[in-house]
Amino acid sequence: FKVSRMEKPHLVTCTAPVNIAVVKYWGKRNEELILPINSSLSVTLHQDQLKTTTTVATNKSFKEDRIWLNGKEEDVTHPRLQSCLREIRRLARKRHNDGDATSTDLTGLSQKVHICSINNFPTAAGLASSAAGFACLVYSLAQAFGVEGELSGIARQGSGSACRSMYGGFVQWIMGNQEDGKDSLAQQVEPESHWPELRILVLVASAERKPIGSTSGMQTSVQTSGLLKHRAESVVPHRMEEMIKAVRGKDFAAFAELTMKDSNQFHATCLDTYPPIFYLNRVSQQVIHLVHRYNRHYGETRVAYSFDAGPNAVIFTLQQHVPEFVHLVQHFFPPETNGENFIKGLPVKHAAASEQLKQSVGLEPMPKGINYVISTKAGPGPRVVKDPSLHLLTPDGFPKP
Amino acid sequence: FKVSRMEKPHLVTCTAPVNIAVVKYWGKRNEELILPINSSLSVTLHQDQLKTTTTVATNKSFKEDRIWLNGKEEDVTHPRLQSCLREIRRLARKRHNDGDATSTDLTGLSQKVHICSINNFPTAAGLASSAAGFACLVYSLAQAFGVEGELSGIARQGSGSACRSMYGGFVQWIMGNQEDGKDSLAQQVEPESHWPELRILVLVASAERKPIGSTSGMQTSVQTSGLLKHRAESVVPHRMEEMIKAVRGKDFAAFAELTMKDSNQFHATCLDTYPPIFYLNRVSQQVIHLVHRYNRHYGETRVAYSFDAGPNAVIFTLQQHVPEFVHLVQHFFPPETNGENFIKGLPVKHAAASEQLKQSVGLEPMPKGINYVISTKAGPGPRVVKDPSLHLLTPDGFPKP
Repeated sequence: FKVSRMEKPHLVTCTAPVNIAVVKYWGKRNEELILPINSSLSVTLHQDQLKTTTTVATNKSFKEDRIWLNGKEEDVTHPRLQSCLREIRRLARKRHNDGDATSTDLTGLSQKVHICSINNFPTAAGLASSAAGFACLVYSLAQAFGVEGELSGIARQGSGSACRSMYGGFVQWIMGNQEDGKDSLAQQVEPESHWPELRILVLVASAERKPIGSTSGMQTSVQTSGLLKHRAESVVPHRMEEMIKAVRGKDFAAFAELTMKDSNQFHATCLDTYPPIFYLNRVSQQVIHLVHRYNRHYGETRVAYSFDAGPNAVIFTLQQHVPEFVHLVQHFFPPETNGENFIKGLPVKHAAASEQLKQSVGLEPMPKGINYVISTKAGPGPRVVKDPSLHLLTPDGFPKP
Repeated sequence: FKVSRMEKPHLVTCTAPVNIAVVKYWGKRNEELILPINSSLSVTLHQDQLKTTTTVATNKSFKEDRIWLNGKEEDVTHPRLQSCLREIRRLARKRHNDGDATSTDLTGLSQKVHICSINNFPTAAGLASSAAGFACLVYSLAQAFGVEGELSGIARQGSGSACRSMYGGFVQWIMGNQEDGKDSLAQQVEPESHWPELRILVLVASAERKPIGSTSGMQTSVQTSGLLKHRAESVVPHRMEEMIKAVRGKDFAAFAELTMKDSNQFHATCLDTYPPIFYLNRVSQQVIHLVHRYNRHYGETRVAYSFDAGPNAVIFTLQQHVPEFVHLVQHFFPPETNGENFIKGLPVKHAAASEQLKQSVGLEPMPKGINYVISTKAGPGPRVVKDPSLHLLTPDGFPKP
């Protein structure tokens, strides 16, 4: 029995969520350790709609670490991937030496891993797949090597924003002060159950071109934008406090306004970068106008937008406003088909927007500007998948065909 | 003879130029006096291509002040127009009382005026017509009332940027510190003859919608953008010094980079405004990409862009690069017709861009994105038109039919 256990790989599968920052992270003070120039705050999206699934297999017979992402084998020597593997192994070794090893033995620590990971959403959705991806990787590796406890500092070294995907609900990434980055960690502000009325819509825009990547984009911004430096030092600290207060008090108007202002300021610093970086296209601009005119029509802030390093809008609103707002989106961005499959995810009741509201918004419709809408809400952090039929690797530790 | 002189109006006609800021003015610290939150610097464009012409008639028999703009009578009680009329009359009275009156008598000072003004460029060109307009108004009124000397402080009260159109060449508007605005004046940095190789191209973009006006736009920015405050206080003072140095030294690369960075930062503060303001559309973004890729191809900064409160690019380059760059513009923004009348103003030699250059730029052509190009250069300040046949008013003081 022992022989067969050693011959067959040990498999563990986990899932991890995407997160959307409402106080944005843009710029590192240390490229290698991935230490940010300011704190940030995000909402973890529900994994029922958007998630990464990762299976890690460990086995004595594996000759080398290998990784398959969305069906394709990738270079395992990628420095950030190596950082995560190294840090998890270091932690496992430390715990073993401290006599705290539960599920692995010293032999297990030296075993190579096979990693297989998939997203349940297209890369074209422009959602920060690296956050969910590295969160899932670190969480799965930790399970495989029997490591528990604070893992966001390791996920951070894979992809900065991945540290926030290690928790559910509303999560802050505290920038920290130490040079070694030990205090640059994510922390849950409130769990996903805190604000059940909050709804999130991802408006997947039809992009005209592939935008510049966030890693090189933020490097150029740190080097050239005086406004980014000012934002990080003088705007964000106070904004973090206000945002935490708005989240804790479930003050939607305050939350929404801070979210929009912060998204705009982030894109402003991209424009202040030299050469400038544009992530907002005309569809994004139109969504921004739509939201402001919708709010103006009602004389209150009912809907907010946020844009990451791409043209897709993430919309925040309360449950009761979703049907009408979705109808407006469909009206001003008429889909190609008759609208079937335009809404994915959480069901949205049908509602009509009044003619008065449409006139009050008064935008020129932009056919096919938005491909589809993902309807979701705040959700939990990474999870272990118990059902062995859901492993992405065969019992031999290779991708399922 | 005296009777007939008093019966026939006294006519004076002047022209004034448009100017393009390379260190931008955005935001007032005093709305009524039009005092800016930062200094700015502009290039006065040549009146052979772009100018306002204004005729002022004074006559004892006129019952009231009247004004016709581009063929249409406008409300003369407009506060900014009234400010200019009041200030010119105050100055004329003061000089008269100081015994310095040369061409007017006390009777003349109380005479009403008829004003007629036209631009030789379409409003659709999106060029700040109010700058040339108010500069021309103030210059013409000063001629009519026999006032000489510093007039930029009066033009400023018509439209902030108009003060810079009171001088030719390279002009700074010093923000000043006094509460009464007496030290907020324009000053020539270098005359138009200083840098004869400098060329300016106005790329008139096809706008999708009318953008928000600069007066209300900058009000909202001052009220809501933290980045604008930082820019005005901490970025512009040093940038003004650098820009003056670049202009004096005819250092094109330095001038060009500062110009682009300042334009981008101005638009960044617009995006940081709440609700955000967008002046750059996809044509503008494409021009920005074109310029940076062109410069990158040659490994030096040969061309710069600047955008005011609208989508039209103003391009700065040196004479020797004009033909090739214009060819590229025509290549990546194919005009509707065969390209006739695509270039207006100073003649541009035909040149081809190499295939290698086009590939290096590598943008998707955007047909009809640019309506036409105005080719011009730096030019002189306001001028009196001596030829009486060019008066815009009849000898009776009414618009010519």
